[in-house]
Amino acid sequence: MVIIMQPNASAQDIKEVIKVIEENGLEAKVMEGRQQRIVGVIGDKTRLASVPLEAMHGVEQTVAISKSYKLASREFHPQPSIVDVDGVKIGGDEPIIMAGPCAVESREQLFEAADIVKAGGAQFLRGGAYKPRTSPYSFQGLEEKGLEYLAEARERTGLKVVTEVTVVEAVERVAYYADMLQVGARNMQNFGLLKAVGRAGKPVLLKRGLAATLNEWLNAAEYIMNEGNPNVVLCERGIRTYETYTRNTLDLSAVPAVKHLSHLPIIVDPSHGTGKWRMVKPMALAAITAGADGLMMEVHPNPARALSDGPQSLTPEHYQDIMTSIHKLSKFMKDEHIQSIDLTD
Amino acid sequence: MVIIMQPNASAQDIKEVIKVIEENGLEAKVMEGRQQRIVGVIGDKTRLASVPLEAMHGVEQTVAISKSYKLASREFHPQPSIVDVDGVKIGGDEPIIMAGPCAVESREQLFEAADIVKAGGAQFLRGGAYKPRTSPYSFQGLEEKGLEYLAEARERTGLKVVTEVTVVEAVERVAYYADMLQVGARNMQNFGLLKAVGRAGKPVLLKRGLAATLNEWLNAAEYIMNEGNPNVVLCERGIRTYETYTRNTLDLSAVPAVKHLSHLPIIVDPSHGTGKWRMVKPMALAAITAGADGLMMEVHPNPARALSDGPQSLTPEHYQDIMTSIHKLSKFMKDEHIQSIDLTD
Amino acid sequence: MVIIMQPNASAQDIKEVIKVIEENGLEAKVMEGRQQRIVGVIGDKTRLASVPLEAMHGVEQTVAISKSYKLASREFHPQPSIVDVDGVKIGGDEPIIMAGPCAVESREQLFEAADIVKAGGAQFLRGGAYKPRTSPYSFQGLEEKGLEYLAEARERTGLKVVTEVTVVEAVERVAYYADMLQVGARNMQNFGLLKAVGRAGKPVLLKRGLAATLNEWLNAAEYIMNEGNPNVVLCERGIRTYETYTRNTLDLSAVPAVKHLSHLPIIVDPSHGTGKWRMVKPMALAAITAGADGLMMEVHPNPARALSDGPQSLTPEHYQDIMTSIHKLSKFMKDEHIQSIDLTD
Amino acid sequence: MVIIMQPNASAQDIKEVIKVIEENGLEAKVMEGRQQRIVGVIGDKTRLASVPLEAMHGVEQTVAISKSYKLASREFHPQPSIVDVDGVKIGGDEPIIMAGPCAVESREQLFEAADIVKAGGAQFLRGGAYKPRTSPYSFQGLEEKGLEYLAEARERTGLKVVTEVTVVEAVERVAYYADMLQVGARNMQNFGLLKAVGRAGKPVLLKRGLAATLNEWLNAAEYIMNEGNPNVVLCERGIRTYETYTRNTLDLSAVPAVKHLSHLPIIVDPSHGTGKWRMVKPMALAAITAGADGLMMEVHPNPARALSDGPQSLTPEHYQDIMTSIHKLSKFMKDEHIQSIDLTD
Repeated sequence: MVIIMQPNASAQDIKEVIKVIEENGLEAKVMEGRQQRIVGVIGDKTRLASVPLEAMHGVEQTVAISKSYKLASREFHPQPSIVDVDGVKIGGDEPIIMAGPCAVESREQLFEAADIVKAGGAQFLRGGAYKPRTSPYSFQGLEEKGLEYLAEARERTGLKVVTEVTVVEAVERVAYYADMLQVGARNMQNFGLLKAVGRAGKPVLLKRGLAATLNEWLNAAEYIMNEGNPNVVLCERGIRTYETYTRNTLDLSAVPAVKHLSHLPIIVDPSHGTGKWRMVKPMALAAITAGADGLMMEVHPNPARALSDGPQSLTPEHYQDIMTSIHKLSKFMKDEHIQSIDLTD
Repeated sequence: MVIIMQPNASAQDIKEVIKVIEENGLEAKVMEGRQQRIVGVIGDKTRLASVPLEAMHGVEQTVAISKSYKLASREFHPQPSIVDVDGVKIGGDEPIIMAGPCAVESREQLFEAADIVKAGGAQFLRGGAYKPRTSPYSFQGLEEKGLEYLAEARERTGLKVVTEVTVVEAVERVAYYADMLQVGARNMQNFGLLKAVGRAGKPVLLKRGLAATLNEWLNAAEYIMNEGNPNVVLCERGIRTYETYTRNTLDLSAVPAVKHLSHLPIIVDPSHGTGKWRMVKPMALAAITAGADGLMMEVHPNPARALSDGPQSLTPEHYQDIMTSIHKLSKFMKDEHIQSIDLTD
Repeated sequence: MVIIMQPNASAQDIKEVIKVIEENGLEAKVMEGRQQRIVGVIGDKTRLASVPLEAMHGVEQTVAISKSYKLASREFHPQPSIVDVDGVKIGGDEPIIMAGPCAVESREQLFEAADIVKAGGAQFLRGGAYKPRTSPYSFQGLEEKGLEYLAEARERTGLKVVTEVTVVEAVERVAYYADMLQVGARNMQNFGLLKAVGRAGKPVLLKRGLAATLNEWLNAAEYIMNEGNPNVVLCERGIRTYETYTRNTLDLSAVPAVKHLSHLPIIVDPSHGTGKWRMVKPMALAAITAGADGLMMEVHPNPARALSDGPQSLTPEHYQDIMTSIHKLSKFMKDEHIQSIDLTD
Repeated sequence: MVIIMQPNASAQDIKEVIKVIEENGLEAKVMEGRQQRIVGVIGDKTRLASVPLEAMHGVEQTVAISKSYKLASREFHPQPSIVDVDGVKIGGDEPIIMAGPCAVESREQLFEAADIVKAGGAQFLRGGAYKPRTSPYSFQGLEEKGLEYLAEARERTGLKVVTEVTVVEAVERVAYYADMLQVGARNMQNFGLLKAVGRAGKPVLLKRGLAATLNEWLNAAEYIMNEGNPNVVLCERGIRTYETYTRNTLDLSAVPAVKHLSHLPIIVDPSHGTGKWRMVKPMALAAITAGADGLMMEVHPNPARALSDGPQSLTPEHYQDIMTSIHKLSKFMKDEHIQSIDLTD
């Protein structure tokens, strides 16, 4: 941490700052600038988290240098991690596709969707049994019944199941049925839930919060990993900006950014990221080219009758077309040794 | 709801849209424009929540007209509500002040803070026993011990206690000790928690989410009210924008906006809203002038030693100075009959 | 400037960085951290502007310490400036009000508006002769005819005239007719225009850009001042955020922030800042309480027939009501010695 | 346009609204909802631009249906346009690459850069002779000297020249030397400049504004086209969001969005869009996959000595590597008939 003093800070101000630093078992180094003095803090970063140096007299600003997350950082684990979900490897050579309806609506709808998903070549079936909805009057999901249908669909197709868990009380139940637990955007800083999924013994898919910085997102992963669960996969799903044409603004630059800062795999959700099925194909292909480890996409047997998120759901035909292109694109990139991201730099 | 068809939508497209509307028990009216047709949907709005008309062929856009929240709306309850917290009335003539440290750090710190808060004339003591922190390595709060200290401080001073609850499991415990339950910005769309505090039998202070729209915020209030708890007070605490000089951008226009859309009281938190103690006074006074029903402010006996949020905490002297100004300002506005917001228009 | 090296930066990397710094006539000081080294740069900040240290091998990040503007900074001019516009003092004890229609539409409309503005006690008449409009098909203003009407209205009422200039070619013409030149939000970084108004010999009202940081805004003022014109007044008019209920998000915290960073006066435009006439009164009063040096408001004899920005224009009655409240509020603050912003801290 | 009346609007309110609509030569149709009435406006949209219906009594909200731009819309010109810049076709089968230094710094630097750019296979040389800089003390460009060097570099390499024009006075001069005029992000709503480049007789590259919506961007194109110049190419260069890790947030979804709304070609600038050279390759390849018609990238013979934007400039080696990948990727997409965007839907 670097502490920038105000131009008119007194010698006493500096002394006080140094005193607080040293009381916390850290070392202070003062650098004289032309207009301002700077104090460098040396030592274990975690002790700094609760020292409010900016409130001290004469302090202009503090600048964090080391990251507040550790287990999720590339400094801690320089090689990219591969998360193994019951045999399916996320973060390896092949893009992993998670597809399915936004919500599980009925046994029939889910089975129909699962068959389409399987036929297209995806490895995971997605589908919400617990739905976090803005309005309390919107469809909230089939809950445990939905989980049962998902498990049945797995039996039927061999697809792995990833599904969202929204409350701590349901973690055990969802972990019983699903292969991978999803933490949704609205819960990215629901720290109680993060800790609970960290102890649930299943890999976790952690979506980026609606307006989360990369730093907050990686700290959310740290909460899960700090409970002893290293199997975290990140999912970029669009951030909130001033632009209203798209439902969110899909931040594909998060892919190379996360790869540079962390060893965790990252996938992209172009369905929520754009909110328009027309934009799913270009953004899905772009995500793979940018180096994403996979995709999450919404597919519905009949989007116009979906109980949630219909406007962004693909028809079976569009889904199949996208999958064909993804497989070709992914093979081409491998065959030609095109690496979007170079981690040796 | 109004459905805007694409300029090239076919007669069959329109027919399909009308069919879906009528199947849901609603009525459709078609309006011929010069370039495009528009379909109006008439009937109970809550049925529309899960009809994804935008996914249908030929549909350009849908525009929501009626609000998705009801209990929180001024249409439902035209007169401003007053929330009574054990005798303290929020939403009445007098601004209600909630003050105290960001986190309860120790019995001594809390008692010292409570005495200062009381002396300044506030009605509520605030202080976090459960702290939602970005990093898992930051101070997380004293938990139940902190709640006990808050209850003791209430005995000592007569101040009401408002404190944050972050997980469903703790709702009952916090409701046992506190007079008012706070739902923090990061949990504004933690719907399980909203429902739990809705059933806890205590008034709720609902902070606006980091990047929540007014619509999402009022729908979050609706989740609480829909469980049978009408005693919800909103708290504007700054939103996330591109500007980094302040910790958040305090959106004071939320005060008149909420008053226009809803009957619920609204207070303002200039400490989190700016992140700088120097800016608390101007924004606190401005909030009162803009029509806020009260304020939440961070005060610490010794901000430079606070375990969290020191940079935005007031010293006892600054707090006392602000309270004096608020009382004068509030009396002046009442005496001169200055009404910032006119709800008769 | 502080340069933070990557944890794995080599001795050669550091050497190269130091070399570039010294070649630019600056001094480098290295500080050894536990994980990373930091290089402090000492000397005249303006030389750093074009040294792209972040592109060098081994560099993680650079942190600017000193500000890139100088003439606009409080370090350069610790006392608040007063801008004198032909006898009207902006930045002094009394709030200065600029009011009038968004656009000059006709001689009659402007005269009618001017009489209302004068009667309410404002010091300035505003009104656009050159209108920057999103669409080329919207009303673009009466241009020179509009300027003539403004000058006539000044004769008639004694009000000072402030009006926007949008192109360099028109600067001389506008400066001939107006008492104060306005640079609009869309032109805040139109650097050619900033330089031109800096040389025009008239005080300048500089609106904050649609999504401008405080730093960019003060640098825009610096462009004007650097041409020899110290008479710059800033105008907060709302920033672009994700919230769509209001036209912009009025950032009142810019008032204390600017007062802390700069000596320039700052006024607030609640009409553009909210886009809704219902919200003008609460935000106008709040701005004054927060320490603003004045206000700019849209008033129209008949808002429902205005050729632009009708929804945010006040009727004569609303304007008169607001002015009465402002005068009372301002007198109260002076009489009671309530200072929102304390610049001695 | 659709006008949504307030639930409590009176019959007289509706009458007044209809009167204003009809006075403007338009037709009004009223639709009775359960809670609210809606008034549809039928006729030529351009007349609506200056009718402030939202200011009328009883009006809740107005919703624009038809677009305010026409020449730039796909309704007006359903087939994608190809912009021919002296023989180089933008918007055709092949991605067009514009590369070069941020600023022209010297004859030698530019020639060296031009040779590298040419060798990599780009069609355009970019380089700023007039630089819009946040601070007046930063390097402002070589101006006319820079233009001369660009023209010389064209002689030398056969590359087309695209360069920014920042003031109306320089349009003629820049048009004399350059093949294509660039309007930068900060000038996207500098309407005087847009009109001037619309009359300059050269194709225009129009960058998206720092915080511009798609609607504002296409209206800016409309300003240019409305002067008789149909040769406009759009350039997505990142938008301003809350995320600070990247300089801007590159909005690749703008590519399919623009293709859906407009017939104009669109290219992507991953250098400004990310601000980090490490992220240029993944985002460049992703842009091509998403359907962009080309790229603009910063290349510098020695980025660490660049006078502006060094951190985002590629070294010659990185540039060459990216170009090789782009050519392979582009050929693969063509050979395999992979179309990211389907305009027949």
